[in-house]
Amino acid sequence: MALLDRIRKPSDLRTLTAGELRSLAQEIRQFLVTNVARTGGHLGPNLGVVELTMAIHLVFDSPKDPIVFDVGHQSYVHKILTGRADGFDRLRQKGGLSGYPNRGESEHDWFENSHASAGLSWSEGMARAFALTGQRDRTVVTVVGDGALTGGMAWEAFNNIADEPELPMVIVVNDNGRSYSPTVGGLSRQLSGLRTDPRYERAMESLKANVSHTPLVGRPAYDLLHGLKIGLKDVLAPQGLFSDLGLKYIGPIDGHDLEALTVAMRQAKGFGGPVIVHAITRKGKGFVPAENHERDRFHAIGRIDECTGEPLTPSVEATWTDAFGAELVALGAEREDLVALTAAMLHPVGLGRFAAAHPDRVFDVGIAEQHAMGAAAGMARAGLHPIVAVYSSFLNRAFDQLLLDVGMHHLGVTVVLDRAGVTGSDGASHDGVWDCSIAGLVPGIHLACPRDATRLRAALREAVDIDDAPSLIRYSKDKLPDPIEAVDRRDGVDVLARGERPEVLLIGFGQLTGTALGVARILAARGLSVTVVDPLWALPMAEPLLAMAAEHALVVTIEDNQVVGGLGSQLELALDAASVEVPMRQFGIPQEYLPVATRAEVLSDLGLTAEPIAESVAATWSRLAR
Amino acid sequence: MALLDRIRKPSDLRTLTAGELRSLAQEIRQFLVTNVARTGGHLGPNLGVVELTMAIHLVFDSPKDPIVFDVGHQSYVHKILTGRADGFDRLRQKGGLSGYPNRGESEHDWFENSHASAGLSWSEGMARAFALTGQRDRTVVTVVGDGALTGGMAWEAFNNIADEPELPMVIVVNDNGRSYSPTVGGLSRQLSGLRTDPRYERAMESLKANVSHTPLVGRPAYDLLHGLKIGLKDVLAPQGLFSDLGLKYIGPIDGHDLEALTVAMRQAKGFGGPVIVHAITRKGKGFVPAENHERDRFHAIGRIDECTGEPLTPSVEATWTDAFGAELVALGAEREDLVALTAAMLHPVGLGRFAAAHPDRVFDVGIAEQHAMGAAAGMARAGLHPIVAVYSSFLNRAFDQLLLDVGMHHLGVTVVLDRAGVTGSDGASHDGVWDCSIAGLVPGIHLACPRDATRLRAALREAVDIDDAPSLIRYSKDKLPDPIEAVDRRDGVDVLARGERPEVLLIGFGQLTGTALGVARILAARGLSVTVVDPLWALPMAEPLLAMAAEHALVVTIEDNQVVGGLGSQLELALDAASVEVPMRQFGIPQEYLPVATRAEVLSDLGLTAEPIAESVAATWSRLAR
Repeated sequence: MALLDRIRKPSDLRTLTAGELRSLAQEIRQFLVTNVARTGGHLGPNLGVVELTMAIHLVFDSPKDPIVFDVGHQSYVHKILTGRADGFDRLRQKGGLSGYPNRGESEHDWFENSHASAGLSWSEGMARAFALTGQRDRTVVTVVGDGALTGGMAWEAFNNIADEPELPMVIVVNDNGRSYSPTVGGLSRQLSGLRTDPRYERAMESLKANVSHTPLVGRPAYDLLHGLKIGLKDVLAPQGLFSDLGLKYIGPIDGHDLEALTVAMRQAKGFGGPVIVHAITRKGKGFVPAENHERDRFHAIGRIDECTGEPLTPSVEATWTDAFGAELVALGAEREDLVALTAAMLHPVGLGRFAAAHPDRVFDVGIAEQHAMGAAAGMARAGLHPIVAVYSSFLNRAFDQLLLDVGMHHLGVTVVLDRAGVTGSDGASHDGVWDCSIAGLVPGIHLACPRDATRLRAALREAVDIDDAPSLIRYSKDKLPDPIEAVDRRDGVDVLARGERPEVLLIGFGQLTGTALGVARILAARGLSVTVVDPLWALPMAEPLLAMAAEHALVVTIEDNQVVGGLGSQLELALDAASVEVPMRQFGIPQEYLPVATRAEVLSDLGLTAEPIAESVAATWSRLAR
Repeated sequence: MALLDRIRKPSDLRTLTAGELRSLAQEIRQFLVTNVARTGGHLGPNLGVVELTMAIHLVFDSPKDPIVFDVGHQSYVHKILTGRADGFDRLRQKGGLSGYPNRGESEHDWFENSHASAGLSWSEGMARAFALTGQRDRTVVTVVGDGALTGGMAWEAFNNIADEPELPMVIVVNDNGRSYSPTVGGLSRQLSGLRTDPRYERAMESLKANVSHTPLVGRPAYDLLHGLKIGLKDVLAPQGLFSDLGLKYIGPIDGHDLEALTVAMRQAKGFGGPVIVHAITRKGKGFVPAENHERDRFHAIGRIDECTGEPLTPSVEATWTDAFGAELVALGAEREDLVALTAAMLHPVGLGRFAAAHPDRVFDVGIAEQHAMGAAAGMARAGLHPIVAVYSSFLNRAFDQLLLDVGMHHLGVTVVLDRAGVTGSDGASHDGVWDCSIAGLVPGIHLACPRDATRLRAALREAVDIDDAPSLIRYSKDKLPDPIEAVDRRDGVDVLARGERPEVLLIGFGQLTGTALGVARILAARGLSVTVVDPLWALPMAEPLLAMAAEHALVVTIEDNQVVGGLGSQLELALDAASVEVPMRQFGIPQEYLPVATRAEVLSDLGLTAEPIAESVAATWSRLAR
């Protein structure tokens, strides 16, 4: 790895010859496969942007020219080129290198991770700020995937960027034809059209004839490239969609041809206003198992064999996702009015089997949660029962639609949230710790946090029968718990453990029901009498729960959601409104952005495991007894 | 009004001759001016869509063909044509005709109001549902303004609609070149380009030559129109932006030429797939004061003189909006790093004066709240302090961005929310009763509900000094209260009324601080000792507030936000966490969608006025004393 060792900062790239740069690209690819195979991480996206990232750093002057990565999971090569190769042995681990840009790691990182399609807005904001403060010599570079362009926020940004012809912005569209799944919609077709534009082939040929064997460094070479007009005058021609908005367009460029990319970046930088550089890349490029995999299994991986790509620790545990997917297939066979929508997440949320069984009843709308929820409202209005299945943290993007388009219209739409609660290694933006709080604001919503697969199946069946209000079911990325049997049922509430005396009433929601039972065991061993219940539907708050709370001396809730606005908070409000003056404690996610670590590590660090919760409850009990 | 009296249902239109239809359009305009001048309402938008709405009802068969109005404030003509003219004397009044479509009023109304840009998603959902259930003979018609197309949700919908060439959908773009203010961005320029397309003039001329004197009813006339190919083959040609996505386009059509519109609608209906009909209309058409008004004062009006357009009850009361606008101008002169962003709401949120003083430091991004917040994050990252000023209810659309793009990045962005709390006459979708709940979820946020103009100015000055976290200031559409003086200050908390004994601690937030003082007076008269405080910053929860709460026997909060997730709920959680076992009651908006009525009527019906709150607190006090 002689070449890679010589790269400690982006400007080191400029000391290499064209041949050395090509070798470096190979070294980086090998480095990625070897390292990410050991740690897990976003392998496919990063293999796809090796040359792209090198070209950006060859042409732009980071950090003076900020480089913004939309989403950010494609920033590994950027990390390598900015002196962070040594950290890859602890990628995405607690205290190790983040899997996303991180301002704490490097001055070359401007924004950290967020949800897709946000990067263009950040960049436009920065470019406007630079313009206002007399720093027009700084170009803001944004790397955005074609999938992210299906998100409305990207379009809002484009509409505004097009209004600022003087802002130095280079928007690199990393077009691999897929986000998590193949990119959908009219936009995708438009991009495909560009890809096959005959001008592209012509321009590429003349470029290659002229530059492919010319070293990329040294003034004469740069002058030659900069002066090169053959082909590029065609390529720089206005192009459809983007130019209709008033945006300049360069492309399409072979995203694995470093020379062509460098020429394009240089042209774009020289333009001085917003320019789109459209690069065609191949996700997983250079790693045969990834390039060949249809379902994009290598987008994000666990530990794999670096030769075959086979998982080293094959998952045999049952998942919530599978349990949902299987039950939906069964329900779908029974009810023709059930349809499913997702936002570029067909397989990750478990809709694959339903899609295979009912291809006409499943809709992948792209990275477009707002539209998914709005279209679901329309479908429900016309008599269907839609199921919107997304990751918990992406519900943030559809809150307005859930509240007004679904909830205010009293429509029967079922939202199913996977990856609810702490997710861990992707960091705070992917934690699903707000969904109960925002969905809990929606008047009339029915919200369930099933404790096991049996309850998940039951809740799903109940949800699709609710036709006058939204319903929501959430579950964890953690393993599916073994069945938890009720010892009793009282007024529709499952009693999971019964205390002898009415001392502590404990309510564990969803994945943390097991934790609640653990707390009860520890407290019982200390002589406290603890009753553990599962209200089945967390919202609307079950009336019997209020009566049970009134009988006890202390009420405790445990949830895998932020305490603020959470289910414990709703119970407390209901108790206040009912004049039930019982002391209460809510355990859940504190109001902070959680660090990168495994889910178990995060929960442990937060004290959200049985021992510390039991300790805290016991201390409260002693205090109350005094 | 002979003709208008004959229209009780849409099919009645088809009994009129072309000349009668033209007369009817004039009658409808006069009817709108006369009635809306008396009641107030959305006059300008409805005057602009008289012929458009007539053409839709002439060609489509409502309710079999659903007509969806994006936003919905432009549905007055639709209401008149569907038998609801009689209700206009009580437009937007409690128990009267809604200012938006309303499913309770008519089978011709499919969706009620929501935020802009949602209508295309609803329609796509309905069209897909019809297709799935074998009802392909139903065409879904959507009326959407050009301003709404700047919203990302509309783009998400277009991207999906373009993927369904078989769905019978007609999308009528009502292009008046403005939403609330002139429409911004690259899209707007694209639409202007279409408007001046020479093909338009040619096509219109040939259309007029052929059809303008032909009666619109009767089979031969329809056949003639349907067969008319001159001009339309040009007009039906693919057009830029939309066709790049794969959408068929008809237009631009003179939106006040009923014959041309009818021909276009018929062509669109016959196409059998998604078609855009681009109609150029003039907001306020036919009412001279509205047509001539630059600042779009007639978008939504109070009571006016139906001849001059002058307000009958000119507003002389000081408003929160003015107080904010004036202070921002002062601050802007002191600090060059302050910039302001809004989403098509420059004047309504009071940024007009700031824009006049600093035109380069104010950015209207269109109806694009996601982008406003994302771009603000970028500006803050590059050293500016942005102020994002929108209506409270539109913050729903930017929750994800506030949480992740601003909050998670610890950036200093100040959000200023006008129309917070109950707004009344526009109905639930415009009530700002969720902002404290969603913003309150953001870790580290500073949130203020100032009680008067002095506190607003102070909070704004404090907010722009916070550079490591988002800050938010919210206020009501209600009149600016007279100054409320503190009688004491304790550890940074203003004491507004001091009780002799530590019985009831009362915290009123923002506009309801006056209500809290009223409650205190009533309770004092009954012998209860009540202390009223204003924590100045509602979040983070002031530590001294916890200590004060611990000293009292009952804590009461009063807020103009939903109780669930609200500020009272946050205080209760903080008290629980601090083991302060004091009884608490939260007064605020219950978890329901509020009906149309004035703000005062809604608050009164909810019992959110001094008398009933005092009654309830007194009852609680008696219960606790037992």
